[in-house]
Amino acid sequence: MKGPASLNRLTIIGVGLIGGSLARALRKWGSVGEIVGSGRSSSHLQRALELGVVDRYELDPAEAVKGADLVVVAVPVAATYTVLQSIAPHINKKVVVTDVGSVKGSVVSDAESALGDRFGRFVPGHPIAGVEHSGVEAAFSTLFVDRKVILTPVEGTDGDALEVVEGLWETAQARVMIMGVTEHDRILAATSHLPHLLAYLLVEHLDSQEEGETLFDLAAGGFRDFTRIASSDPTMWRDVSLTNREALAEWMESYRKRLEQVIDDVRAGRGEQLQALFTKAKRARDRYFPPDEGLE
Amino acid sequence: MKGPASLNRLTIIGVGLIGGSLARALRKWGSVGEIVGSGRSSSHLQRALELGVVDRYELDPAEAVKGADLVVVAVPVAATYTVLQSIAPHINKKVVVTDVGSVKGSVVSDAESALGDRFGRFVPGHPIAGVEHSGVEAAFSTLFVDRKVILTPVEGTDGDALEVVEGLWETAQARVMIMGVTEHDRILAATSHLPHLLAYLLVEHLDSQEEGETLFDLAAGGFRDFTRIASSDPTMWRDVSLTNREALAEWMESYRKRLEQVIDDVRAGRGEQLQALFTKAKRARDRYFPPDEGLE
Repeated sequence: MKGPASLNRLTIIGVGLIGGSLARALRKWGSVGEIVGSGRSSSHLQRALELGVVDRYELDPAEAVKGADLVVVAVPVAATYTVLQSIAPHINKKVVVTDVGSVKGSVVSDAESALGDRFGRFVPGHPIAGVEHSGVEAAFSTLFVDRKVILTPVEGTDGDALEVVEGLWETAQARVMIMGVTEHDRILAATSHLPHLLAYLLVEHLDSQEEGETLFDLAAGGFRDFTRIASSDPTMWRDVSLTNREALAEWMESYRKRLEQVIDDVRAGRGEQLQALFTKAKRARDRYFPPDEGLE
Repeated sequence: MKGPASLNRLTIIGVGLIGGSLARALRKWGSVGEIVGSGRSSSHLQRALELGVVDRYELDPAEAVKGADLVVVAVPVAATYTVLQSIAPHINKKVVVTDVGSVKGSVVSDAESALGDRFGRFVPGHPIAGVEHSGVEAAFSTLFVDRKVILTPVEGTDGDALEVVEGLWETAQARVMIMGVTEHDRILAATSHLPHLLAYLLVEHLDSQEEGETLFDLAAGGFRDFTRIASSDPTMWRDVSLTNREALAEWMESYRKRLEQVIDDVRAGRGEQLQALFTKAKRARDRYFPPDEGLE
């Protein structure tokens, strides 16, 4: 445990579900002198203050980071560059900066151009935690308990900065993994970005049919689960799709090719192939997500 | 309410989740003299007897249907023909026969050839109810409450037989809808069969990768929900895919075409198109499945 015990001041830019839950976790398990919030909406920040998530807030990120030991940027991926650029002149050589974006390649290059010679202090991070709800009202201290947090330091990342961010997440009871930027983006494209695209596409496709209403009316629980992620924030997913487009398009394309083969199998009535496919899939699904756990 | 109040003897062939739940519902809300079970496994039938789901059982379907007013065939779609053929000589002109299969085209033609001049007594049915669990142990009387049950009578179906089956499901508190066979199979291919294929395919595709284990290890709640239906019974879904292959292949193909366009949008970084797609999908999803309901 590296522990952020020596933190005098933590600044969180973007006090939503992720940023707010991290603040709550640090209050519970860590020792932080002051937590300062920042963001675009003063009413949201006011709410965060009332809820005791932050000790005070500053609308201007440049003001908010003054005197901070650690800055957590928890804004949409597309806003990362602007935020980092606005705080760059105001952070000293000892400050550590990290983010929580679900795409790391674009964030790293944004950080490189926005932070200049402070880039070594930036540790790219991504907590793999549910985002079905959003906003500071939904924040809770145990969101990250036993969840994985991937950190993707690059060659220029300072070792001590990495240690501070590892300590941050360990304090929040998360399991920290270190991984390359490209590997992260390739893996998340497969397990998160591709399923989101497929779900959005199915709902849109059925909704575009003349009999759309009848279709949804007769959809049952399986459809409901399958399409739950199609209820996610469209702007966020546009940004993810754009910033991770190469890896995402590659997975979509290889999936499309397999789909083409399976359409062929269905048309030709190749029962053995279909049963082999379904059996292999069920076996993998049940191995990684045992059916008796939770609601299944 | 047409009500099956005058049922002296109900025979259920295949006493699993669906057949068992229907038996329990009729015991609770209907008035049935005797419920006779039949099926392939004497241990399952013995369990159904111990649980009070049936009053007695006969392994031989021909024996089980003797003296029945109503026969419910709740076996896998692929077994329908064999079951109907074995009972055909033993049902008189007054007996009503119905099924619960999730594909209706193949069932209707199976029934036509298996039942011959008794075909008018057969009412094709499909309760749209969850099948995440299975087996008589999981059966419960309220499974069908407020769920939709689609009946697809054809030209030769006797009107009084249809009324009996309507009454059966209304007694179980289900909402009965009448629909054409082709329409049923086309709609269910879109809302149920297509999503199952897509989910199976995603899990199999990721599991086929060298880094498969890492992929699943980093998959979060969204992936878990999306792939829940990939845990369904492979044999059942092979049969559904084979028996409804035309409608299913058509939906798979139109989905594949849309996917191709969206891959293009992602590659070209067409943010506006992507946001429009996601927004349209989210709006439809939230309209039909309000986000505040249930677990979301």
